[in-house]
Amino acid sequence: MKAIGFKQPFKLEEGNVFEPFELDMPQPSSRELLVKIQSISVNPVDTKQRLTEVKNSPRILGFDAVGTVQKTGIEVTMFKEGDIVFYSGAPNQHGSNQEYQLIDERLVAKAPKNLSAEQAASLPLTGITASETLFDVFKISENPNQNKGKTLLIINGAGGVGSITTQIAKAYGLKVITTASRQETIDWSKKMGADIVLNHKEDLKSQLEQQHIEAVDFVFCTFDTDMYYETMIDIVKPRGHVATIVAFKGSQDLNLLKTKSVSFTHEFMFTRPIFQTEDMIKHHYYLEDIAKKIENGTYQNTTTKVINGLTAEHLYEAHQILESNSMIGKLVINVEE
Amino acid sequence: MKAIGFKQPFKLEEGNVFEPFELDMPQPSSRELLVKIQSISVNPVDTKQRLTEVKNSPRILGFDAVGTVQKTGIEVTMFKEGDIVFYSGAPNQHGSNQEYQLIDERLVAKAPKNLSAEQAASLPLTGITASETLFDVFKISENPNQNKGKTLLIINGAGGVGSITTQIAKAYGLKVITTASRQETIDWSKKMGADIVLNHKEDLKSQLEQQHIEAVDFVFCTFDTDMYYETMIDIVKPRGHVATIVAFKGSQDLNLLKTKSVSFTHEFMFTRPIFQTEDMIKHHYYLEDIAKKIENGTYQNTTTKVINGLTAEHLYEAHQILESNSMIGKLVINVEE
Repeated sequence: MKAIGFKQPFKLEEGNVFEPFELDMPQPSSRELLVKIQSISVNPVDTKQRLTEVKNSPRILGFDAVGTVQKTGIEVTMFKEGDIVFYSGAPNQHGSNQEYQLIDERLVAKAPKNLSAEQAASLPLTGITASETLFDVFKISENPNQNKGKTLLIINGAGGVGSITTQIAKAYGLKVITTASRQETIDWSKKMGADIVLNHKEDLKSQLEQQHIEAVDFVFCTFDTDMYYETMIDIVKPRGHVATIVAFKGSQDLNLLKTKSVSFTHEFMFTRPIFQTEDMIKHHYYLEDIAKKIENGTYQNTTTKVINGLTAEHLYEAHQILESNSMIGKLVINVEE
Repeated sequence: MKAIGFKQPFKLEEGNVFEPFELDMPQPSSRELLVKIQSISVNPVDTKQRLTEVKNSPRILGFDAVGTVQKTGIEVTMFKEGDIVFYSGAPNQHGSNQEYQLIDERLVAKAPKNLSAEQAASLPLTGITASETLFDVFKISENPNQNKGKTLLIINGAGGVGSITTQIAKAYGLKVITTASRQETIDWSKKMGADIVLNHKEDLKSQLEQQHIEAVDFVFCTFDTDMYYETMIDIVKPRGHVATIVAFKGSQDLNLLKTKSVSFTHEFMFTRPIFQTEDMIKHHYYLEDIAKKIENGTYQNTTTKVINGLTAEHLYEAHQILESNSMIGKLVINVEE
């Protein structure tokens, strides 16, 4: 079966080093599912992982998939052959840039019934990241009434993670402020449900003050944490919480957190699958909740660009688009041409 | 009325710059109480604040007091004249190193009935710090059964904060591991309820492994955060939480938090009173819970050294003892000789 991968880490300037590989069909064991993949999506984490050391060649990236269960491991209890599922996965095994993939059932849920595969492929990685940030990091309540009056600021609201975080936060009762700068990103973020969209090219604190908001309960950074570190601490409430999904380039002064007793978290959705934590089934529950709310019309999918055909050329093109930092919503690739 | 303070920040090597001041008797307004102080305690924060700029001279430190309510502001509803109370206070007003002090009733509770003033004075600052760290930062449950199986590691278990944190964490169902190095600090920490005491002069991770503990849910640093930053991240569980009350000397690499999605908080018990947060009454509730559990025998006070007479000389001596970093439990000064 076909997979698209590479043998050595590479920068895009070096040209297209992605290539097709013919791999043996894997066999599911224990709690694994073998999934025939229909659509995948490309995330910023793909472009970062493309630059890291290849320990087992070829490296197959891809952290979003929608497909059909073909076989189940002997301990699988939650899925059966023929189920259409969606999931993100883990970076320490082959990803979704292939025709078939093995995946632990605890990381998987049934895909929303009312979406096409290319629509549903936009949701797993970003949806799990958003859910972990809201429920595990910020510890918002599962009861929307208890979150009333709480405010979340998302730095970069129109990206993949920002788009679904906005929707989930709104559904669970938070007030959501996002940042954007172009008219189309502002419009998109409002479409996702943002109550207020600030211009991230201008001072955020004064823009908040214009909205009569002195400070926010939670800040979630999905873009350039170094640039926003001090600002985020400045605009969060005393005893508030700041989270990021973007690694720092430099060291930071942690004492800035002191006066307000601010908490800081580096959210990384691969933590549970990498460490095989006892609660990694939370990915299943988060995806299940997202599917339910897609089906009842609460959430909308975030696919904005679709490429047909999982080829080395198309994957290279997708990484170029991701690295341009201009992506609104999500880019999806259908496996078939 | 008499207060002990200073006009300029000073290091102890400069000699004793504390001096007595004769201040006007303050009058309580709004929600303030006027308290006649019987006992105070000295905390590491006093020695740090002694080095900071004096904005309003004289600077009167002191962040623990037990005393009797003399007068109440017009909006006071929770206390009356004659109540014996205990509290910590705030750094942006005159502290407890004086005969009388004004304090917002939301930061105050009735002192435990079964303790002397010098016993009760050991508890407010450390007890509030411990409570905020456990309930607001680590968000442990108020139901001990829900905390069963969770483990807390306290760096430096025998200090003032470590001593009461151990007791509160145990009462609320956590397993508590502390660090110490001398026989008397090991013994003290066990007396406070620590399940395991590690030697903080040796490698913590290997000592935990000897105890068949792979990682802990929470780490609370009460001593030299720079020294323990990497170790704490190394021994905390995936998605665990690290907190400190000790400011960093240098910058740190926040990316170390990423792989495990670790949360980091700089706990500072003055955040609520400084920012006059809507929930600053939590200090009252925390103190009330501590008083109740002292009265029913769950907690013991942590006073280990008592000096009689609030004089400039005694305060200087107390700061010397605190800065020697050898204090077990808490040092208390009775106002009267």
